[in-house]
Parts: sequence; C-alpha cells; structure tokens
Amino acid sequence: MSDNHFQVSDLGEKKLIKRIINKLDNYESSKINKLFKYQIGDDAALINITNLINTDINIKNINDSIKCNEDLENNEKYLVASSDLLIQDKHFPKQMSYFQMGQKSVTVNVSDLTAMGAKPAGILISLAIPRDLNLIYFDEMIDGILNACYTYGIPLIGGDTNEADQIIISGTAFGTVDKINALRKTGFVKGDYIAITGEIGLASLGFEILKNENINIIKNELKEDKISGKIVDLAIEKALNPVSNVDEGIILGKFASSGTDITDGLASELYELYNSNNEIKKDDNLGLRIYENNLTNMPNFKEISKISKVLNKDSLDLILHVGEDFEILFTSSLDKDKIKNNLDENIDFFIIGEVTDTNRVELQYSDGRIVELSPKGYEHFAKN
Amino acid sequence: MSDNHFQVSDLGEKKLIKRIINKLDNYESSKINKLFKYQIGDDAALINITNLINTDINIKNINDSIKCNEDLENNEKYLVASSDLLIQDKHFPKQMSYFQMGQKSVTVNVSDLTAMGAKPAGILISLAIPRDLNLIYFDEMIDGILNACYTYGIPLIGGDTNEADQIIISGTAFGTVDKINALRKTGFVKGDYIAITGEIGLASLGFEILKNENINIIKNELKEDKISGKIVDLAIEKALNPVSNVDEGIILGKFASSGTDITDGLASELYELYNSNNEIKKDDNLGLRIYENNLTNMPNFKEISKISKVLNKDSLDLILHVGEDFEILFTSSLDKDKIKNNLDENIDFFIIGEVTDTNRVELQYSDGRIVELSPKGYEHFAKN
Repeated sequence: MSDNHFQVSDLGEKKLIKRIINKLDNYESSKINKLFKYQIGDDAALINITNLINTDINIKNINDSIKCNEDLENNEKYLVASSDLLIQDKHFPKQMSYFQMGQKSVTVNVSDLTAMGAKPAGILISLAIPRDLNLIYFDEMIDGILNACYTYGIPLIGGDTNEADQIIISGTAFGTVDKINALRKTGFVKGDYIAITGEIGLASLGFEILKNENINIIKNELKEDKISGKIVDLAIEKALNPVSNVDEGIILGKFASSGTDITDGLASELYELYNSNNEIKKDDNLGLRIYENNLTNMPNFKEISKISKVLNKDSLDLILHVGEDFEILFTSSLDKDKIKNNLDENIDFFIIGEVTDTNRVELQYSDGRIVELSPKGYEHFAKN
Repeated sequence: MSDNHFQVSDLGEKKLIKRIINKLDNYESSKINKLFKYQIGDDAALINITNLINTDINIKNINDSIKCNEDLENNEKYLVASSDLLIQDKHFPKQMSYFQMGQKSVTVNVSDLTAMGAKPAGILISLAIPRDLNLIYFDEMIDGILNACYTYGIPLIGGDTNEADQIIISGTAFGTVDKINALRKTGFVKGDYIAITGEIGLASLGFEILKNENINIIKNELKEDKISGKIVDLAIEKALNPVSNVDEGIILGKFASSGTDITDGLASELYELYNSNNEIKKDDNLGLRIYENNLTNMPNFKEISKISKVLNKDSLDLILHVGEDFEILFTSSLDKDKIKNNLDENIDFFIIGEVTDTNRVELQYSDGRIVELSPKGYEHFAKN
C-alpha cells in the first residue's frame, strides 16, 4: 500500500517526527552550514555559540577573534532552544484558568531546557485567540505568561498575535548550557541508577479527577472521608499549575549520566533514553529496568492508588503511561548518598531502577517477574 | 465602561501587542536579568550574545573570560530571534499547495530577520495538523519547509507536532547581526530618502485574483487578451511563493538609516517607522511623505492597475493597505546613485518618498495635494 492511503494518525506523533528527521538528511547539503548539533531527537536543540559568533563575515581583527574563540572553545557553551505548541482543547482542561494556561505555556517550554540542564534566558510566545475572547481573559492569560517568566527569571522577548477558533499558545524558550554539563538522553552505562526528581502520577491523577464524569464521584468520596482531600488537592494543583524545576536540571546536568523530562509518561520517557542510546550505540545491549516496589513505595502512592481505584484507573498505569508531571528522569553512576550530596538536600529524588545489559525496557514486579514495558505514552494522533 | 465589556476584536492586533508591552514593565523587576534589549516593538528581538555567554556561573578562568569579552564587545553581535504563527484559513489561500504552505512558514519567519539586517542561522517549527491529513500532504509540507531552509541556508533544528482541526505552523527563526549593522525601525533623519527594495502590490493583487469570486473574471479577461497574462502569473507567484531577500537585508543593515519588511501594507509599515521614532524622540517632528507619482511610475503599475480595476479594486489601495510583498521599506541619507552603489547592481529599488519635519505620515498626489495617510493595514481581529 503506498503512502497516499495513509493518514498522519496511522503513524502517530513519534513516527511522524522520525519521518521529519529522516528527511533532514536529504537537505543537509554543504550549503547548510554545519555549525549546529541537530538535536531534534533530544529535548532541545544545541547550537554552538562560539560558531554562531564566527558566522560573522566582518571580523575586524582576525587574530583577536581566533584568540577569543580559543578561550571560548575551552568552556564551550551551547545555546539551547526548544519549541512547544499548546492547543486549548488538547492541553488545557476545562477547569484551567486563563492565567494558568499562560503559565503552563511557559512551563512546558522551560521544561525542555530543564531537561537539558540549561539555564533559561528568554522566551518568545506566539498566540492565536478567538476574536470574541473577553479582554479580561486576554489580560489574565498574558499575566499568567509574564508571571511564569518572572518565576523562571526570564524576559518575554517577542512573539506574534493571531486569530483562531480556540486558544493556541506556541512558545520558543532558549537558554545556555556548558557543553560538558548538557543533560542528554544518551550517556548512561550498565549499573547506573535510574531515578526521578519527584513523585510522579499526581498530575495524571489530577487530569482524571477533573474530567466531567469524575468530579462528582470524587466529591462524594471526599464527603464520606474515603479519600485524602490533601492528595486530591495536590493532584489538581499538579495538573493545573505545573512547574519546571530549573535548578534541579542545572545540578543534574553536572553529574547525571543522562536525563529527560517526564511529559509523556514514565514508560515513554524510558524508551526515549533507550532508543536514543540505541541510535548511537547499536550493539551495547544496554537496557533499563525499573522496580514496581520502588514506585509503590513513593510517599503518596497508596493514596494515589486509592483515588485511582475509585475512578476505575490503575495507579501504575497512570505513572507509566500518562505524563505531565514535569519531573526529571535521570541516570547516574553515583550511589544514593552521593546523589543526595550532589543534589541540594531540599530536593527530593527517588531511585526507581537501574541500567542493565538486557537490551530492553522492563519492569520487575514485586513478585520477581520481569516483563518488557509497553512504550505507550501520551502521543498526539494516537489511534486509541 | 470597564474592560470586561470588551472583546479582543474591539482593540485589534496592534493595540493588543501594545497592551502586552505595557504589562512587561510591571514584570521587569530586578529578578529578570537585563541582558536583553527587548525589541517586541521591532521586527525581531535582539539579544546581546556577549552577555548571553556571561550568564555562565562556572567561568573557569575569569581573566581569560574578561579579556575575551572585551574583544567581543568591540564587534558586539546580537542574536536575533523572531516568531510567526500561520493558520491555514487565515494565511494560506485555497490554491496554496502543502509544499507552498511549508515554504511560506519559513519565509515569514526569515523575513523578520531580513527586516533587521540579520543573517539567519536556524529555525524551529511547531506544527499542528488534522489527524486525517493524508501522509502525502504531510510529506509535501515538510519538503516545503526543508526546501525553504535550504534556500535560506539554515538548518531546521527543532519543533513540536500536535493535532488540530486545521494546519497551524508556528516558527521561530534566529540569526545574528553586528550591533552597528542592525536595521532598526528608528534612525531616519530629515531629508532621508524613503525607498523599497522591489515593486509592491503584486502579492495583494495575487490574493485578489485567487479569490473564488474573481478567478473566472480573470480567466475571461485573459481569454479576450484584455489583461497581461504575465502580470497575472507574477501576482499569483508572489502570493503563493513569497521569498525573503536575506542578502538585501544584510546589505541595507550596513547603510540604511532605518527599515522594516512590508508584510501588512506600505501605509501600515510607514506608521511602524513613524511611531517607533515617536516613542523615542517625541519632539523632533519627523514625518514620512511618499509620492503617488513614484508609486505609479513603478514598471508594472499600469498593468496592476488595469487588473485591479477589473476586480473593482484600487491599485493604490492594494499597495498602501494590503501587504505580503516581503520587500523591505527603508530610509537612507544617501542619494539614488550612492544607494545603487551600495546595493548590488542586480538589486532593484525604488525611491518613493522622503523624511519630512511635518510630524505625520502623508501622501502627495500627482496634482500636488498632500493628505495624511490612513494607517490601515492588514491587522488580525480588525472589525472591518
């Protein structure tokens, strides 16, 4: 069957991106300068700032310039850039305020920099909004954007305004990172611990709670004191007010062997690391194994599990296959105490598994059984 | 009447952007670093690369670093970044192929860099596409994007893929420019010539020709040899395959006193220059005057005018109040011959007016009458 019988939904988001990357090769001719490390497969693009400066055709004093660049070469720094586009009916639950939409649009973009260990430096935001949007809501959205910029210490430096049937917020965040500290998806070795920077599953539980069909069920359970109001609040907070912990990313960049942000579910992100490694080292047989026990031992897991059950959801499924937690998944050759020493003591982290030589992504259940994990994560255009 | 009685369409795009800029002041606290020249009002943001490098918290050899930065300071370079978001039913006429949509999305973003005299260095593209889009069309669109990247000599370095009811292409282009060569909206002085890099009005005529109600009228006129097929083809070509002339921008950056790209119509862009100047020098009384004669003397004007009349349009109105030509409007203190010497001799340009001290934007008709120009240009959310 030829391509013209297929729709984009037959491929799904990840295969579409792969398709774009494959096409890139045809265009990587000599005409396009090679100053860039294409990182379309990574969380953000890395651009060598030194080379960017050298594109100048009018260097006044070539000797000074070369000397200068030698210095720069020594602590080689990347400009890091990443784009994320959010669409109202896909990314913003109905209960999300316009202020929160603005905030989230900045957070998702900053999160891609965090995932690279980069320090954010600025953001551009392009908006599309319905023409009948009340000006009060427009202001709220802009306030949310600017408030998040303030939180992350970055300026809003540009963008575009358009008309559309629903709200679309497209951002491009950029920042900087020293080459040696860039947190990549590759770099882990056998025996490395696999860890996450905070408990996950709360945001996806929050999205479940906020669904029309669930909100009254939860209210009744709360009334009868069957579930924890504190955890319900926390889950909703994580869903509506996601935050990217930039400082954790910067610290992890210095000692973690690899890392990424957990936006599409833990399983999906584990496969991101696994596949990225496979692409560059096809025969090292490295695999990633996580332990059910470590996930179920996280502080709020029991309560998350109880609430999930009320909503006919499996908490492990929420953790593995739904995302939006914006925590960082990382690997490190250091042991738990040394990771603790490297991370600020106020920063939580949980060891959830280890790098193996089994050449697959797997889950070890508490009864000892080991199964290959399904790569299913949140994916646009997915059939199911 | 309080703000909550207003919709965004009551303000229009330019006032909304102004509203965002005003809000920025509240957030420009000491916490947000001041390394940036906010240029939300200019065509693109300017970021001081030297300062960007200095954000590093881990400079290994502080003396080397300072020395290096002194060198860089001397030929201070800006990173230039700009975002534009295109929506299928607003920016892509029905006759536009998916390949052309992809191309246009790159061109509009590169054009903002051209308008600053910058050399493009890379682009990020975020897509939203309907789930039932045929894969062939998806490929065509990506090919269009990559082909334009190839034309402008820049890599596609990142982006995002999403699902939406119609095609949305949001791009962020970035590049570099020496501080002294950045083409800004301000800088013109009394007596400067006002010029454009090529004949305008063709793209807007093309969009008119392509309208459902017009296409048969044009076909009939062509059949009866009443209008020029060459100009019809050229107009359609300009509408469907816009190109940004990066080299012209870079050259103009070196000698023009100000400039911008003509995307929203000549009148609107003249007001962009006029208002930008007013914001920084409120009492210099500088104004901009263009001459009807100079516009009507452009090589294809008579034919454009004839075709416009067939479609019940005024050609001067198309030139003044509709855009999408992607030519550059610039000012220069040099006379015509000297401009010619500075520009490559293959580059067309037309002098259309001069900078006055009349403190307004005006048009001098061929009969000598001088009238204030209406600022009307293409604007999203516009009421009419």
